[in-house]
Amino acid sequence: MTNEVRLIEVKEEIHADNDRVARDLRAQLGEKHTFLLNLMSSPGAGKTQTILRTIEELRSGLHFGVLEADIDSKVDAERIAAHGISAVQLRTGGLCHLDASMVAKGLAALDLDALDVVIIENVGNLVCPAEFDTGANKNVMILSVPEGDDKPLKYPLMFTVSDVLLVNKIDYLGLSDFDLGALKQRALRLNPRMQIFEISAKTGEGVAAWAAWLQREVRSAIGG
Amino acid sequence: MTNEVRLIEVKEEIHADNDRVARDLRAQLGEKHTFLLNLMSSPGAGKTQTILRTIEELRSGLHFGVLEADIDSKVDAERIAAHGISAVQLRTGGLCHLDASMVAKGLAALDLDALDVVIIENVGNLVCPAEFDTGANKNVMILSVPEGDDKPLKYPLMFTVSDVLLVNKIDYLGLSDFDLGALKQRALRLNPRMQIFEISAKTGEGVAAWAAWLQREVRSAIGG
Repeated sequence: MTNEVRLIEVKEEIHADNDRVARDLRAQLGEKHTFLLNLMSSPGAGKTQTILRTIEELRSGLHFGVLEADIDSKVDAERIAAHGISAVQLRTGGLCHLDASMVAKGLAALDLDALDVVIIENVGNLVCPAEFDTGANKNVMILSVPEGDDKPLKYPLMFTVSDVLLVNKIDYLGLSDFDLGALKQRALRLNPRMQIFEISAKTGEGVAAWAAWLQREVRSAIGG
Repeated sequence: MTNEVRLIEVKEEIHADNDRVARDLRAQLGEKHTFLLNLMSSPGAGKTQTILRTIEELRSGLHFGVLEADIDSKVDAERIAAHGISAVQLRTGGLCHLDASMVAKGLAALDLDALDVVIIENVGNLVCPAEFDTGANKNVMILSVPEGDDKPLKYPLMFTVSDVLLVNKIDYLGLSDFDLGALKQRALRLNPRMQIFEISAKTGEGVAAWAAWLQREVRSAIGG
């Protein structure tokens, strides 16, 4: 298996049956004992850096692959691949989200038998990705401190569909009037079962606790 | 004219003829001597604060109104209205962008004869809003420093369609590895005529230069 970046073109096809495709994909991945994680956030919230930190924390025990959605570049996939991680680039050609069939196409380019976990880096967008089930076992969103603590009020669906909220760039907290308590309250009002972790993907702070949660979820889903 | 927030529901209607609607709207606004500015950015890049700073700088000579697009809240429109500025809330109900007909609906709720400039705060999204001509005279985008200097590589259409790039949160420059020179080079490669201003909407730094540019554009478009 090579770590070269592969480029797959995906075209916009709105599948009325996306939910069915997602359900089937989840079942197939279950049979292969592969855990699929869908990571969503605004542009620049730190998805790629968070993926790298998370994999660094867990790669001694789990084998990771990454699906990189990007509108028009390969920079993120190349950054992942530079760390010796299998990465597939899904070029969306302007499309603002991924759906389950696009994810299935990307997964077909990975050797799933060799992978325990595949992380999808979705398109940087707090709106559209929240509307499409990708077939993932868990949805994780990042909100970075510079974006502000009011985002649950403005992008409620993203908070509603995400199992985990990673509050990233906590090293910026001192510089801003970001109210962590208010953010958590707003997020939990929308989604009382949401797991919330505070991290700095830059310094590594807090990543261990989030990674430990992920490891437990993966083990409980795929065994081992 | 009241400064209360009005709430208008807009439903998703994909207009094949959006370009025609936008062109007609621009012509109508020209007759009314009203300048329309379309402000776009990621969530949390500082659109509302930038609008407030810009209006503060120019309101002694120009009358402003604001159209606030928001998926599901009125917080931004209420913040604008609290400063005595006419604000209309366009609730998009999950839609990821505004098009010209939605903007026309919002403008109909403002007293355009009393306004020189209307600023549209578009949905927080670097993808979809770039695809729709809103009828604005100028498109302005904000990129905030914490989002990173690689965004022109990933969201090229937004940089291509914007007349102005406001690099916001320059008070964060010291905390990050953001390369302002690289950002400008990438942006200008996509759009050589792009005007670039560095601002901090929080501290007010740099806002005067951007506001002076806007004032000149408004005067040249509507006279006076």
